[in-house]
Amino acid sequence: MLVVAERLNATRKPVAEALRKRDKVFIRDEVRRQAEAGANFLDVNTALSPKEERDLMIWAVETIREATDTPPAIDTANPEAARAGLERVPKGSALLNSISGETERLEKMLPLVSEFDTKVVALAMDDAGMPNSNEDRWRALERIFQATDAAGVPREHIFVDPLVRPLATNPEQVVQVLDMIREIQAKGGGAGTIVGLSNISFGLPARHLLNRTFLAMAAGAGLTAAILDPLEPGMAAAVLAANALRGDDPYCMNYIGAHREGRL
Amino acid sequence: MLVVAERLNATRKPVAEALRKRDKVFIRDEVRRQAEAGANFLDVNTALSPKEERDLMIWAVETIREATDTPPAIDTANPEAARAGLERVPKGSALLNSISGETERLEKMLPLVSEFDTKVVALAMDDAGMPNSNEDRWRALERIFQATDAAGVPREHIFVDPLVRPLATNPEQVVQVLDMIREIQAKGGGAGTIVGLSNISFGLPARHLLNRTFLAMAAGAGLTAAILDPLEPGMAAAVLAANALRGDDPYCMNYIGAHREGRL
Repeated sequence: MLVVAERLNATRKPVAEALRKRDKVFIRDEVRRQAEAGANFLDVNTALSPKEERDLMIWAVETIREATDTPPAIDTANPEAARAGLERVPKGSALLNSISGETERLEKMLPLVSEFDTKVVALAMDDAGMPNSNEDRWRALERIFQATDAAGVPREHIFVDPLVRPLATNPEQVVQVLDMIREIQAKGGGAGTIVGLSNISFGLPARHLLNRTFLAMAAGAGLTAAILDPLEPGMAAAVLAANALRGDDPYCMNYIGAHREGRL
Repeated sequence: MLVVAERLNATRKPVAEALRKRDKVFIRDEVRRQAEAGANFLDVNTALSPKEERDLMIWAVETIREATDTPPAIDTANPEAARAGLERVPKGSALLNSISGETERLEKMLPLVSEFDTKVVALAMDDAGMPNSNEDRWRALERIFQATDAAGVPREHIFVDPLVRPLATNPEQVVQVLDMIREIQAKGGGAGTIVGLSNISFGLPARHLLNRTFLAMAAGAGLTAAILDPLEPGMAAAVLAANALRGDDPYCMNYIGAHREGRL
Protein backbone atom coordinates (compact mmCIF):
# COMPACT_ATOMS: atom_id res chain seq x y z
CA MET A 1 0.00 0.00 0.00
CA LEU A 2 1.24 3.47 -0.87
CA VAL A 3 1.26 5.94 2.01
CA VAL A 4 0.51 9.59 1.24
CA ALA A 5 1.55 11.45 4.38
CA GLU A 6 -0.90 14.22 5.19
CA ARG A 7 0.68 16.44 7.81
CA LEU A 8 1.94 19.23 5.55
CA ASN A 9 -1.49 20.79 5.23
CA ALA A 10 -2.37 24.45 5.73
CA THR A 11 -5.52 23.47 7.63
CA ARG A 12 -3.23 22.40 10.50
CA LYS A 13 -2.40 25.40 12.66
CA PRO A 14 1.34 24.79 13.19
CA VAL A 15 1.75 24.25 9.43
CA ALA A 16 -0.19 27.45 8.62
CA GLU A 17 2.09 29.28 11.02
CA ALA A 18 5.22 27.76 9.49
CA LEU A 19 4.04 28.63 5.97
CA ARG A 20 3.35 32.23 6.99
CA LYS A 21 6.79 32.55 8.55
CA ARG A 22 8.54 30.55 5.81
CA ASP A 23 9.90 28.39 8.61
CA LYS A 24 12.13 25.92 6.76
CA VAL A 25 13.31 24.20 9.94
CA PHE A 26 9.77 23.23 10.88
CA ILE A 27 8.78 22.06 7.40
CA ARG A 28 11.96 20.03 6.90
CA ASP A 29 11.43 18.32 10.23
CA GLU A 30 7.80 17.42 9.41
CA VAL A 31 8.88 16.14 6.02
CA ARG A 32 11.75 14.01 7.28
CA ARG A 33 9.77 12.45 10.12
CA GLN A 34 6.99 11.46 7.74
CA ALA A 35 9.44 10.06 5.19
CA GLU A 36 11.18 8.03 7.89
CA ALA A 37 7.82 6.69 9.07
CA GLY A 38 7.24 5.16 5.64
CA ALA A 39 5.63 7.86 3.48
CA ASN A 40 5.73 7.18 -0.29
CA PHE A 41 4.40 10.67 -1.10
CA LEU A 42 4.35 13.85 0.98
CA ASP A 43 1.08 15.68 0.58
CA VAL A 44 1.52 19.44 0.40
CA ASN A 45 -1.43 21.79 0.73
CA THR A 46 -0.69 25.52 0.95
CA ALA A 47 -4.22 26.91 0.62
CA LEU A 48 -3.83 29.61 3.27
CA SER A 49 -5.47 32.12 0.94
CA PRO A 50 -6.08 32.15 -2.83
CA LYS A 51 -3.58 34.97 -3.20
CA GLU A 52 -0.69 33.24 -1.46
CA GLU A 53 -1.33 29.62 -2.42
CA ARG A 54 0.83 29.53 -5.57
CA ASP A 55 3.89 31.21 -4.06
CA LEU A 56 3.66 29.08 -0.91
CA MET A 57 3.38 25.93 -3.04
CA ILE A 58 6.62 26.84 -4.82
CA TRP A 59 8.36 27.53 -1.52
CA ALA A 60 7.01 24.37 0.14
CA VAL A 61 7.89 22.06 -2.76
CA GLU A 62 11.42 23.47 -2.89
CA THR A 63 11.74 23.01 0.88
CA ILE A 64 10.53 19.40 0.64
CA ARG A 65 13.04 18.66 -2.12
CA GLU A 66 15.89 20.05 -0.02
CA ALA A 67 14.88 17.79 2.87
CA THR A 68 14.14 14.43 1.23
CA ASP A 69 13.93 12.36 -1.96
CA THR A 70 10.35 11.35 -1.17
CA PRO A 71 8.20 12.98 -3.87
CA PRO A 72 5.40 15.42 -3.08
CA ALA A 73 1.68 14.96 -3.60
CA ILE A 74 0.57 18.34 -4.90
CA ASP A 75 -2.70 18.93 -3.05
CA THR A 76 -4.74 21.76 -4.51
CA ALA A 77 -7.83 22.54 -6.55
CA ASN A 78 -6.03 25.57 -7.99
CA PRO A 79 -4.49 24.83 -11.42
CA GLU A 80 -1.92 27.65 -11.15
CA ALA A 81 -0.67 26.44 -7.78
CA ALA A 82 -0.62 22.86 -9.09
CA ARG A 83 1.40 23.83 -12.18
CA ALA A 84 3.86 25.86 -10.13
CA GLY A 85 4.42 22.91 -7.77
CA LEU A 86 4.71 20.31 -10.54
CA GLU A 87 7.26 22.44 -12.44
CA ARG A 88 9.60 22.07 -9.47
CA VAL A 89 9.54 18.24 -9.36
CA PRO A 90 11.10 15.77 -11.83
CA LYS A 91 8.55 14.72 -14.44
CA GLY A 92 6.87 11.41 -13.69
CA SER A 93 7.56 11.48 -9.95
CA ALA A 94 4.71 13.43 -8.35
CA LEU A 95 1.14 12.64 -7.35
CA LEU A 96 -1.49 15.25 -8.17
CA ASN A 97 -4.26 15.51 -5.57
CA SER A 98 -6.76 15.81 -7.25
CA ILE A 99 -9.04 15.65 -10.24
CA SER A 100 -12.77 14.83 -10.06
CA GLY A 101 -15.75 14.45 -12.36
CA GLU A 102 -16.64 18.13 -11.84
CA THR A 103 -16.53 19.82 -15.24
CA GLU A 104 -14.30 22.76 -14.38
CA ARG A 105 -11.87 20.81 -12.21
CA LEU A 106 -11.54 18.06 -14.81
CA GLU A 107 -10.93 20.52 -17.66
CA LYS A 108 -8.33 22.53 -15.78
CA MET A 109 -6.44 19.83 -13.85
CA LEU A 110 -6.39 16.88 -16.25
CA PRO A 111 -3.99 18.55 -18.75
CA LEU A 112 -1.43 18.82 -15.92
CA VAL A 113 -1.58 15.05 -15.36
CA SER A 114 -0.54 14.46 -18.97
CA GLU A 115 1.96 17.29 -19.16
CA PHE A 116 3.83 16.31 -15.99
CA ASP A 117 3.17 12.56 -16.24
CA THR A 118 1.85 12.46 -12.67
CA LYS A 119 -0.02 9.86 -10.76
CA VAL A 120 -3.37 11.34 -9.78
CA VAL A 121 -6.09 11.10 -7.13
CA ALA A 122 -9.55 11.04 -8.74
CA LEU A 123 -12.39 12.04 -6.40
CA ALA A 124 -15.49 9.96 -7.17
CA MET A 125 -17.80 12.98 -7.42
CA ASP A 126 -19.19 15.11 -10.24
CA ASP A 127 -21.15 18.33 -10.64
CA ALA A 128 -23.96 16.80 -8.55
CA GLY A 129 -21.71 17.04 -5.47
CA MET A 130 -20.62 14.50 -2.86
CA PRO A 131 -21.68 10.90 -3.67
CA ASN A 132 -24.44 9.28 -1.62
CA SER A 133 -24.20 5.83 -3.18
CA ASN A 134 -21.89 3.70 -5.26
CA GLU A 135 -24.09 4.51 -8.26
CA ASP A 136 -23.17 8.17 -7.73
CA ARG A 137 -19.51 7.18 -7.45
CA TRP A 138 -19.55 5.10 -10.64
CA ARG A 139 -21.35 7.83 -12.57
CA ALA A 140 -18.60 10.30 -11.65
CA LEU A 141 -15.94 7.69 -12.32
CA GLU A 142 -17.19 6.86 -15.80
CA ARG A 143 -16.95 10.52 -16.67
CA ILE A 144 -13.43 10.72 -15.25
CA PHE A 145 -12.24 7.54 -17.01
CA GLN A 146 -13.66 8.75 -20.32
CA ALA A 147 -11.60 11.93 -19.98
CA THR A 148 -8.41 10.26 -18.70
CA ASP A 149 -8.59 7.56 -21.39
CA ALA A 150 -8.97 10.27 -24.04
CA ALA A 151 -5.97 12.09 -22.58
CA GLY A 152 -3.91 8.88 -22.62
CA VAL A 153 -3.51 8.64 -18.83
CA PRO A 154 -2.84 5.01 -17.91
CA ARG A 155 -5.45 3.58 -15.50
CA GLU A 156 -2.55 2.42 -13.30
CA HIS A 157 -1.72 6.07 -12.61
CA ILE A 158 -5.18 6.81 -11.21
CA PHE A 159 -6.12 6.36 -7.54
CA VAL A 160 -9.86 6.61 -7.09
CA ASP A 161 -10.98 8.21 -3.83
CA PRO A 162 -14.51 6.98 -2.99
CA LEU A 163 -14.84 9.93 -0.57
CA VAL A 164 -15.31 8.74 2.96
CA ARG A 165 -17.55 10.78 5.23
CA PRO A 166 -17.60 10.64 9.04
CA LEU A 167 -18.93 7.42 10.54
CA ALA A 168 -20.74 9.53 13.15
CA THR A 169 -22.99 11.09 10.51
CA ASN A 170 -22.95 8.35 7.84
CA PRO A 171 -23.12 5.02 9.69
CA GLU A 172 -24.09 2.95 6.65
CA GLN A 173 -21.20 4.16 4.60
CA VAL A 174 -18.28 1.88 5.50
CA VAL A 175 -19.83 -1.21 3.94
CA GLN A 176 -20.56 0.86 0.81
CA VAL A 177 -17.01 2.19 0.58
CA LEU A 178 -15.50 -1.28 1.07
CA ASP A 179 -17.74 -2.60 -1.72
CA MET A 180 -16.64 0.28 -3.93
CA ILE A 181 -12.96 -0.48 -3.31
CA ARG A 182 -13.57 -4.09 -4.40
CA GLU A 183 -15.61 -3.01 -7.43
CA ILE A 184 -12.85 -0.67 -8.64
CA GLN A 185 -10.31 -3.45 -8.21
CA ALA A 186 -12.53 -5.74 -10.30
CA LYS A 187 -13.80 -3.32 -12.92
CA GLY A 188 -11.53 -0.24 -12.83
CA GLY A 189 -9.23 -1.42 -15.61
CA GLY A 190 -6.18 -1.29 -13.36
CA ALA A 191 -7.03 1.88 -11.43
CA GLY A 192 -6.03 1.91 -7.77
CA THR A 193 -7.96 3.21 -4.78
CA ILE A 194 -7.16 5.71 -2.06
CA VAL A 195 -8.95 6.97 1.04
CA GLY A 196 -8.45 10.04 3.20
CA LEU A 197 -8.37 8.01 6.38
CA SER A 198 -9.01 10.48 9.17
CA ASN A 199 -12.40 11.65 7.87
CA ILE A 200 -13.94 8.41 9.10
CA SER A 201 -13.39 9.20 12.78
CA PHE A 202 -14.39 12.88 12.78
CA GLY A 203 -16.52 13.70 15.82
CA LEU A 204 -15.81 10.41 17.64
CA PRO A 205 -13.41 9.62 20.52
CA ALA A 206 -10.21 7.56 20.23
CA ARG A 207 -9.88 8.59 16.60
CA HIS A 208 -6.58 6.78 16.03
CA LEU A 209 -8.21 3.45 16.87
CA LEU A 210 -11.01 3.98 14.35
CA ASN A 211 -8.55 5.23 11.72
CA ARG A 212 -6.27 2.22 11.89
CA THR A 213 -9.15 -0.27 12.15
CA PHE A 214 -10.76 1.24 9.05
CA LEU A 215 -7.37 1.15 7.30
CA ALA A 216 -7.16 -2.60 7.94
CA MET A 217 -10.72 -3.14 6.68
CA ALA A 218 -9.99 -1.16 3.51
CA ALA A 219 -6.64 -2.94 3.02
CA GLY A 220 -8.49 -6.25 3.27
CA ALA A 221 -10.84 -5.04 0.54
CA GLY A 222 -7.83 -4.28 -1.69
CA LEU A 223 -7.07 -0.59 -1.01
CA THR A 224 -3.86 0.43 -2.82
CA ALA A 225 -3.09 3.79 -1.17
CA ALA A 226 -4.10 5.90 1.82
CA ILE A 227 -3.76 9.53 2.84
CA LEU A 228 -2.88 9.36 6.52
CA ASP A 229 -0.67 10.67 9.28
CA PRO A 230 2.19 8.15 9.58
CA LEU A 231 3.17 9.67 12.93
CA GLU A 232 -0.22 8.94 14.50
CA PRO A 233 0.20 6.37 17.33
CA GLY A 234 -0.01 2.85 15.94
CA MET A 235 -0.50 3.92 12.33
CA ALA A 236 2.84 2.97 10.78
CA ALA A 237 2.64 -0.39 12.56
CA ALA A 238 -0.91 -0.93 11.26
CA VAL A 239 0.28 -0.27 7.69
CA LEU A 240 3.13 -2.77 8.11
CA ALA A 241 0.76 -5.41 9.52
CA ALA A 242 -1.81 -4.83 6.77
CA ASN A 243 0.83 -5.15 4.06
CA ALA A 244 2.16 -8.36 5.60
CA LEU A 245 -1.33 -9.87 5.86
CA ARG A 246 -2.24 -8.96 2.29
CA GLY A 247 0.87 -10.68 0.98
CA ASP A 248 2.41 -7.37 -0.15
CA ASP A 249 5.46 -7.91 2.04
CA PRO A 250 7.27 -11.04 0.82
CA TYR A 251 8.32 -13.28 3.72
CA CYS A 252 7.09 -10.47 6.03
CA MET A 253 10.60 -9.01 5.75
CA ASN A 254 9.55 -5.38 6.28
CA TYR A 255 7.32 -6.39 9.16
CA ILE A 256 10.01 -8.44 10.86
CA GLY A 257 12.63 -5.74 10.20
CA ALA A 258 10.40 -3.08 11.74
CA HIS A 259 9.96 -5.30 14.79
CA ARG A 260 13.73 -5.71 15.14
CA GLU A 261 14.10 -1.93 15.03
CA GLY A 262 11.43 -1.47 17.68
CA ARG A 263 8.99 0.19 15.28
CA LEU A 264 5.99 -2.09 15.88
CA MET B 1 -19.61 -9.65 15.97
CA LEU B 2 -19.84 -12.45 18.49
CA VAL B 3 -16.75 -12.97 20.62
CA VAL B 4 -15.85 -16.53 21.63
CA ALA B 5 -13.24 -16.11 24.36
CA GLU B 6 -10.49 -18.68 24.00
CA ARG B 7 -8.47 -18.63 27.20
CA LEU B 8 -10.04 -21.63 28.96
CA ASN B 9 -8.11 -24.13 26.88
CA ALA B 10 -6.12 -27.09 28.18
CA THR B 11 -3.32 -26.32 25.71
CA ARG B 12 -2.49 -23.28 27.87
CA LYS B 13 -0.20 -24.34 30.70
CA PRO B 14 -1.82 -22.40 33.57
CA VAL B 15 -5.23 -23.75 32.52
CA ALA B 16 -3.92 -27.32 32.33
CA GLU B 17 -2.51 -26.84 35.82
CA ALA B 18 -5.81 -25.42 37.12
CA LEU B 19 -7.79 -28.28 35.56
CA ARG B 20 -5.49 -30.86 37.13
CA LYS B 21 -5.84 -29.25 40.55
CA ARG B 22 -9.56 -28.49 40.12
CA ASP B 23 -8.63 -24.89 40.96
CA LYS B 24 -12.02 -23.13 40.98
CA VAL B 25 -10.56 -19.76 41.97
CA PHE B 26 -8.35 -19.63 38.89
CA ILE B 27 -11.05 -20.78 36.47
CA ARG B 28 -13.67 -18.39 37.86
CA ASP B 29 -11.24 -15.50 37.56
CA GLU B 30 -10.39 -16.35 33.93
CA VAL B 31 -14.08 -16.70 33.14
CA ARG B 32 -15.16 -13.43 34.75
CA ARG B 33 -12.37 -11.37 33.21
CA GLN B 34 -13.22 -12.68 29.75
CA ALA B 35 -16.95 -12.06 30.25
CA GLU B 36 -16.25 -8.51 31.44
CA ALA B 37 -14.05 -7.91 28.39
CA GLY B 38 -17.03 -8.60 26.13
CA ALA B 39 -17.13 -12.37 25.55
CA ASN B 40 -20.43 -13.71 24.18
CA PHE B 41 -19.34 -17.33 24.62
CA LEU B 42 -16.64 -18.85 26.82
CA ASP B 43 -14.75 -21.57 24.98
CA VAL B 44 -13.94 -24.54 27.20
CA ASN B 45 -11.48 -27.19 26.11
CA THR B 46 -10.48 -29.83 28.68
CA ALA B 47 -8.56 -32.24 26.43
CA LEU B 48 -5.75 -32.93 28.90
CA SER B 49 -6.05 -36.65 28.17
CA PRO B 50 -8.79 -38.78 26.58
CA LYS B 51 -9.44 -40.44 29.93
CA GLU B 52 -10.01 -37.24 31.88
CA GLU B 53 -11.60 -35.02 29.24
CA ARG B 54 -15.26 -35.85 30.00
CA ASP B 55 -15.03 -35.46 33.78
CA LEU B 56 -13.04 -32.25 33.45
CA MET B 57 -15.61 -30.89 30.99
CA ILE B 58 -18.37 -31.47 33.54
CA TRP B 59 -16.35 -29.82 36.28
CA ALA B 60 -15.33 -26.87 34.05
CA VAL B 61 -18.84 -26.20 32.74
CA GLU B 62 -20.24 -26.27 36.26
CA THR B 63 -17.50 -23.91 37.41
CA ILE B 64 -18.22 -21.51 34.53
CA ARG B 65 -21.94 -21.52 35.36
CA GLU B 66 -21.21 -20.66 38.99
CA ALA B 67 -19.11 -17.71 37.88
CA THR B 68 -21.10 -16.08 35.09
CA ASP B 69 -24.23 -16.08 32.94
CA THR B 70 -22.14 -16.03 29.76
CA PRO B 71 -22.75 -19.39 28.06
CA PRO B 72 -19.95 -21.83 27.25
CA ALA B 73 -18.67 -22.92 23.87
CA ILE B 74 -18.10 -26.64 24.31
CA ASP B 75 -14.80 -27.21 22.51
CA THR B 76 -14.08 -30.85 21.86
CA ALA B 77 -13.93 -33.51 19.17
CA ASN B 78 -15.06 -36.10 21.72
CA PRO B 79 -18.82 -36.75 21.57
CA GLU B 80 -19.00 -38.04 25.17
CA ALA B 81 -17.27 -34.96 26.56
CA ALA B 82 -19.49 -32.75 24.37
CA ARG B 83 -22.69 -34.44 25.58
CA ALA B 84 -21.61 -34.25 29.22
CA GLY B 85 -20.91 -30.52 28.87
CA LEU B 86 -24.11 -29.76 26.97
CA GLU B 87 -26.23 -31.60 29.54
CA ARG B 88 -25.12 -29.05 32.13
CA VAL B 89 -26.19 -25.96 30.17
CA PRO B 90 -29.76 -24.73 29.45
CA LYS B 91 -30.92 -26.00 26.06
CA GLY B 92 -30.50 -23.51 23.26
CA SER B 93 -27.82 -21.46 24.96
CA ALA B 94 -24.49 -23.12 24.12
CA LEU B 95 -22.18 -23.10 21.13
CA LEU B 96 -20.69 -26.46 20.09
CA ASN B 97 -17.13 -26.24 18.77
CA SER B 98 -17.15 -28.12 16.40
CA ILE B 99 -18.49 -30.24 13.58
CA SER B 100 -16.75 -30.68 10.21
CA GLY B 101 -17.25 -32.48 6.93
CA GLU B 102 -15.24 -35.46 8.23
CA THR B 103 -17.51 -38.49 8.17
CA GLU B 104 -16.99 -39.71 11.72
CA ARG B 105 -17.07 -36.26 13.33
CA LEU B 106 -20.20 -35.28 11.43
CA GLU B 107 -22.03 -38.51 12.32
CA LYS B 108 -21.17 -38.32 16.00
CA MET B 109 -21.40 -34.60 16.73
CA LEU B 110 -24.30 -33.42 14.56
CA PRO B 111 -26.98 -35.26 16.59
CA LEU B 112 -25.90 -33.24 19.64
CA VAL B 113 -26.54 -29.97 17.77
CA SER B 114 -30.16 -31.00 17.24
CA GLU B 115 -30.67 -32.57 20.65
CA PHE B 116 -29.33 -29.58 22.59
CA ASP B 117 -30.38 -26.90 20.09
CA THR B 118 -26.88 -25.45 20.03
CA LYS B 119 -25.22 -22.99 17.76
CA VAL B 120 -22.29 -24.73 16.10
CA VAL B 121 -18.88 -24.07 14.58
CA ALA B 122 -18.48 -25.94 11.28
CA LEU B 123 -14.87 -26.47 10.18
CA ALA B 124 -14.60 -26.18 6.39
CA MET B 125 -12.72 -29.45 5.99
CA ASP B 126 -13.62 -33.02 5.11
CA ASP B 127 -11.95 -36.43 5.05
CA ALA B 128 -9.35 -35.04 2.62
CA GLY B 129 -7.90 -32.95 5.48
CA MET B 130 -7.13 -29.24 5.84
CA PRO B 131 -8.39 -27.11 2.92
CA ASN B 132 -5.86 -25.63 0.49
CA SER B 133 -8.33 -23.59 -1.55
CA ASN B 134 -11.83 -22.20 -1.40
CA GLU B 135 -12.90 -25.07 -3.65
CA ASP B 136 -11.79 -27.45 -0.88
CA ARG B 137 -13.69 -25.34 1.65
CA TRP B 138 -16.91 -25.32 -0.39
CA ARG B 139 -16.71 -29.06 -1.05
CA ALA B 140 -16.57 -29.68 2.71
CA LEU B 141 -19.25 -27.10 3.33
CA GLU B 142 -21.72 -28.59 0.87
CA ARG B 143 -21.39 -31.90 2.65
CA ILE B 144 -21.93 -30.22 6.03
CA PHE B 145 -24.93 -28.17 4.85
CA GLN B 146 -26.53 -31.28 3.33
CA ALA B 147 -26.29 -33.00 6.71
CA THR B 148 -27.35 -29.99 8.82
CA ASP B 149 -30.29 -29.26 6.50
CA ALA B 150 -31.39 -32.89 6.79
CA ALA B 151 -31.12 -32.63 10.58
CA GLY B 152 -33.20 -29.44 10.60
CA VAL B 153 -30.41 -27.21 11.91
CA PRO B 154 -31.11 -23.60 10.88
CA ARG B 155 -28.33 -22.09 8.79
CA GLU B 156 -28.34 -19.11 11.18
CA HIS B 157 -27.06 -21.43 13.93
CA ILE B 158 -23.98 -22.40 11.91
CA PHE B 159 -20.67 -20.49 12.02
CA VAL B 160 -18.38 -21.64 9.26
CA ASP B 161 -14.68 -21.64 10.14
CA PRO B 162 -12.63 -21.34 6.91
CA LEU B 163 -9.59 -22.60 8.87
CA VAL B 164 -6.87 -19.99 8.94
CA ARG B 165 -3.28 -21.19 8.85
CA PRO B 166 -0.21 -19.15 9.85
CA LEU B 167 0.64 -16.21 7.60
CA ALA B 168 4.31 -17.15 7.99
CA THR B 169 3.81 -20.46 6.17
CA ASN B 170 0.75 -19.61 4.01
CA PRO B 171 1.28 -16.05 2.74
CA GLU B 172 -1.36 -16.24 0.00
CA GLN B 173 -4.06 -17.34 2.34
CA VAL B 174 -5.50 -14.13 3.81
CA VAL B 175 -6.97 -12.94 0.52
CA GLN B 176 -8.48 -16.42 0.05
CA VAL B 177 -10.01 -16.48 3.52
CA LEU B 178 -11.46 -12.96 3.13
CA ASP B 179 -13.01 -14.03 -0.19
CA MET B 180 -14.45 -17.13 1.50
CA ILE B 181 -16.02 -15.04 4.28
CA ARG B 182 -17.73 -12.88 1.63
CA GLU B 183 -18.82 -15.93 -0.37
CA ILE B 184 -20.44 -17.54 2.67
CA GLN B 185 -22.22 -14.29 3.46
CA ALA B 186 -23.52 -14.21 -0.14
CA LYS B 187 -24.25 -17.90 -0.72
CA GLY B 188 -24.35 -19.58 2.70
CA GLY B 189 -28.12 -19.32 3.14
CA GLY B 190 -27.76 -17.30 6.34
CA ALA B 191 -24.80 -19.15 7.84
CA GLY B 192 -22.32 -17.01 9.76
CA THR B 193 -18.53 -17.15 9.75
CA ILE B 194 -15.93 -17.53 12.48
CA VAL B 195 -12.14 -17.53 12.60
CA GLY B 196 -9.68 -18.71 15.21
CA LEU B 197 -7.77 -15.46 15.18
CA SER B 198 -4.43 -16.23 16.76
CA ASN B 199 -3.42 -18.91 14.22
CA ILE B 200 -2.69 -16.17 11.70
CA SER B 201 0.26 -14.75 13.65
CA PHE B 202 1.92 -18.01 14.71
CA GLY B 203 5.70 -17.79 14.31
CA LEU B 204 5.78 -14.01 13.76
CA PRO B 205 6.67 -11.17 16.14
CA ALA B 206 4.19 -8.66 17.60
CA ARG B 207 1.41 -11.22 17.29
CA HIS B 208 -1.26 -9.01 18.89
CA LEU B 209 -0.81 -6.43 16.14
CA LEU B 210 -1.31 -9.02 13.38
CA ASN B 211 -4.25 -10.58 15.22
CA ARG B 212 -6.20 -7.36 15.59
CA THR B 213 -5.33 -6.15 12.07
CA PHE B 214 -6.57 -9.43 10.62
CA LEU B 215 -9.70 -9.18 12.78
CA ALA B 216 -10.45 -5.78 11.23
CA MET B 217 -9.88 -7.12 7.72
CA ALA B 218 -12.19 -10.08 8.37
CA ALA B 219 -14.80 -7.84 10.01
CA GLY B 220 -14.72 -5.65 6.92
CA ALA B 221 -15.39 -8.76 4.82
CA GLY B 222 -18.44 -9.53 6.98
CA LEU B 223 -17.12 -11.91 9.66
CA THR B 224 -19.85 -12.63 12.23
CA ALA B 225 -17.84 -14.23 15.06
CA ALA B 226 -14.26 -14.73 16.21
CA ILE B 227 -12.47 -17.01 18.62
CA LEU B 228 -9.98 -14.73 20.35
CA ASP B 229 -8.43 -13.68 23.62
CA PRO B 230 -10.40 -10.62 24.74
CA LEU B 231 -7.70 -9.82 27.30
CA GLU B 232 -4.98 -9.50 24.65
CA PRO B 233 -3.70 -5.89 24.54
CA GLY B 234 -5.84 -3.82 22.18
CA MET B 235 -8.16 -6.67 21.24
CA ALA B 236 -11.38 -5.65 23.00
CA ALA B 237 -10.89 -2.11 21.65
CA ALA B 238 -10.35 -3.46 18.12
CA VAL B 239 -13.62 -5.43 18.36
CA LEU B 240 -15.50 -2.31 19.52
CA ALA B 241 -14.01 -0.23 16.69
CA ALA B 242 -14.77 -2.90 14.08
CA ASN B 243 -18.39 -3.19 15.26
CA ALA B 244 -18.80 0.60 15.16
CA LEU B 245 -17.33 0.83 11.65
CA ARG B 246 -19.49 -2.01 10.29
CA GLY B 247 -22.64 -0.31 11.54
CA ASP B 248 -23.27 -3.06 14.13
CA ASP B 249 -23.19 -0.54 16.98
CA PRO B 250 -26.06 1.92 16.48
CA TYR B 251 -24.95 5.52 17.08
CA CYS B 252 -21.57 4.06 18.20
CA MET B 253 -23.09 3.86 21.69
CA ASN B 254 -21.00 0.88 22.84
CA TYR B 255 -17.87 2.46 21.39
CA ILE B 256 -18.49 5.82 23.04
CA GLY B 257 -19.47 4.15 26.32
CA ALA B 258 -16.27 2.08 26.32
CA HIS B 259 -14.29 5.27 25.75
CA ARG B 260 -16.00 6.97 28.70
CA GLU B 261 -15.08 3.99 30.88
CA GLY B 262 -11.45 4.13 29.74
CA ARG B 263 -11.68 0.80 27.89
CA LEU B 264 -10.42 1.99 24.48
